[in-house]
Amino acid sequence: MTEGQDECLSLALDAMGGDAAPDAVIEGADLVLSGAIPCEGRVHFSIYGKGDVVLPVLSKYKRVVANSVFIDVADAVLASDRPSYALRHRRNSSMWKAVEDVKKGLVKGMVSAGNTGALMAVSRCVLGTMQDIDRPAIVTAAPSKKDSFVIVDLGANVECNAYALFQFALMGVAFAKTVLGRSDPKVGLINIGEEEVKGTVAVREACALLREAGSKVNFHGYVEANEALAGKVDVVVTDGFTGNVMLKAMEGTADLIFSAFKDTARSSLIRRIGGLLLRGGIKRMLGRLDPDRYNGAMLLGLNGIVVKSHGGADGEAFAYAIKAAVSAARHDVVSRIAAEISEIG
Amino acid sequence: MTEGQDECLSLALDAMGGDAAPDAVIEGADLVLSGAIPCEGRVHFSIYGKGDVVLPVLSKYKRVVANSVFIDVADAVLASDRPSYALRHRRNSSMWKAVEDVKKGLVKGMVSAGNTGALMAVSRCVLGTMQDIDRPAIVTAAPSKKDSFVIVDLGANVECNAYALFQFALMGVAFAKTVLGRSDPKVGLINIGEEEVKGTVAVREACALLREAGSKVNFHGYVEANEALAGKVDVVVTDGFTGNVMLKAMEGTADLIFSAFKDTARSSLIRRIGGLLLRGGIKRMLGRLDPDRYNGAMLLGLNGIVVKSHGGADGEAFAYAIKAAVSAARHDVVSRIAAEISEIG
Repeated sequence: MTEGQDECLSLALDAMGGDAAPDAVIEGADLVLSGAIPCEGRVHFSIYGKGDVVLPVLSKYKRVVANSVFIDVADAVLASDRPSYALRHRRNSSMWKAVEDVKKGLVKGMVSAGNTGALMAVSRCVLGTMQDIDRPAIVTAAPSKKDSFVIVDLGANVECNAYALFQFALMGVAFAKTVLGRSDPKVGLINIGEEEVKGTVAVREACALLREAGSKVNFHGYVEANEALAGKVDVVVTDGFTGNVMLKAMEGTADLIFSAFKDTARSSLIRRIGGLLLRGGIKRMLGRLDPDRYNGAMLLGLNGIVVKSHGGADGEAFAYAIKAAVSAARHDVVSRIAAEISEIG
Repeated sequence: MTEGQDECLSLALDAMGGDAAPDAVIEGADLVLSGAIPCEGRVHFSIYGKGDVVLPVLSKYKRVVANSVFIDVADAVLASDRPSYALRHRRNSSMWKAVEDVKKGLVKGMVSAGNTGALMAVSRCVLGTMQDIDRPAIVTAAPSKKDSFVIVDLGANVECNAYALFQFALMGVAFAKTVLGRSDPKVGLINIGEEEVKGTVAVREACALLREAGSKVNFHGYVEANEALAGKVDVVVTDGFTGNVMLKAMEGTADLIFSAFKDTARSSLIRRIGGLLLRGGIKRMLGRLDPDRYNGAMLLGLNGIVVKSHGGADGEAFAYAIKAAVSAARHDVVSRIAAEISEIG
């Protein structure tokens, strides 16, 4: 770092992951560097990929070339790789090398739009899990009527016992405090009704564990998915299967309504004019609700910052995942979460 | 029935169930009778409830009085009743008596906005399950980008093995054929990715069972919740916990977006005008997407028609649940489903 310059945060990007790799990754980096999608402070990228695939794209983005290093790797994780396969055979992949450099401290974190299972397995193997955490989880923020809420887990753990759910709650609280800046985050456990008798055995036992935690966790009790969206709690806890379905249902519904709205606003001249008059307001509304803006789910419970972008992300969506990683790094999320967990747990 | 009159379908209404009972129930009946929410053919109601609670409301709706009989009962199922408690102690409740009259053939079906668990338990006890069906399920239709799709199960079975999921698929297919009129409904199994290695053990085993069924089931494979909303399949199969969360996430997201849109269209004079110009189109769009229109989930796999309305339904939403029950009865869903299942199973 040069004398007198603002602190420049170094971040690793896996240029081989995702449906639109490497284009979306490089374009995302460019949107961040241009300030189109502003991040907290200056960023420098380490870009990992196969030279023959990435360099032709990279060379088109002068701004990215000027603010990055390129690390040529021999291999890439495929979307179809099982986690166990990636662990054994993808040590020379862009994903592995990027996570390894997080471990070495060469970068403050990494972002990948690649295979989620492989990313979790590789990250767990290379970085290790935090003390007192058995199973890392995937978290993201999502919009609510009031502001936003955190969902844990989004798919890292398809079957969870009560203790895993309890740990998700602690991680979610720590994330909500550090990344969303909530002072005393309210936790809700996803269930299919508010009565204590409802739900699976794991959910009912997790409820008991959270009640036992007393004042250490601001536990609201059970919530239904619509109540979470209405803003009733700050942190929503559920197993990875349910959390993933919940998030995808939210995305699918938003997409359904927005496309129906577009059709409506194009269905006659009068309605076209109506749509134009509303355009500024709708844009602002979309700004708050657009799933792309919430792209970038964090793998929590690891000794390092790893952010998973949606596999289908375009450049703009990928830029938001970069933004999430930068924010996590700037707020030193990993050590703050470790502190929270040792305090509560 | 008088000579020359159209066939008049007799339907039971539980006037004691739901947050807004008995008002929403009676108002819903009135909206159907007035034609505001039209059903297939003429309807006559049998209304079950405690006289002191229901009669003062009923007396305000002349049209309902003229087209119904009132059955005074001594008791009601409470929202907090466990299913086992309802089975033992609520035999004189409006819910029980209404289901009993379905069994006796006095009415063609019943609608209740009451306690779901109790409704399922009572219906199962009184009506019995269809041959070859182990566990009844709750189904509803929901809007998709293309048209609509069916979700099974919505909460009757929180933990399901592969065989239960397989049966849900058969019931869903039968429902899509009879109620939605689809000729060869495409079935998707909810999972958190398309790869065969993903998901819980039950989901992977159910996938194998559905593949084994060969040409008897038009099985698409795994789908994610957003793909279902995009219209990729006609029937979505999942356990009751996940299905319930998925539906509530859809409702919550729709509510979030519609209320944000309303705020936007009120935020300035220009935008108010824009909103007015779009009003007709938005109304039509809402007509297709409004969760209220999809109110009325059917308890499938029973020897009789039982429809569950949302507990929070207002009169209009309850009227849609009545409409769903009338449609199921007119299409003779129960025997057509039994025929489907004996053919496929």
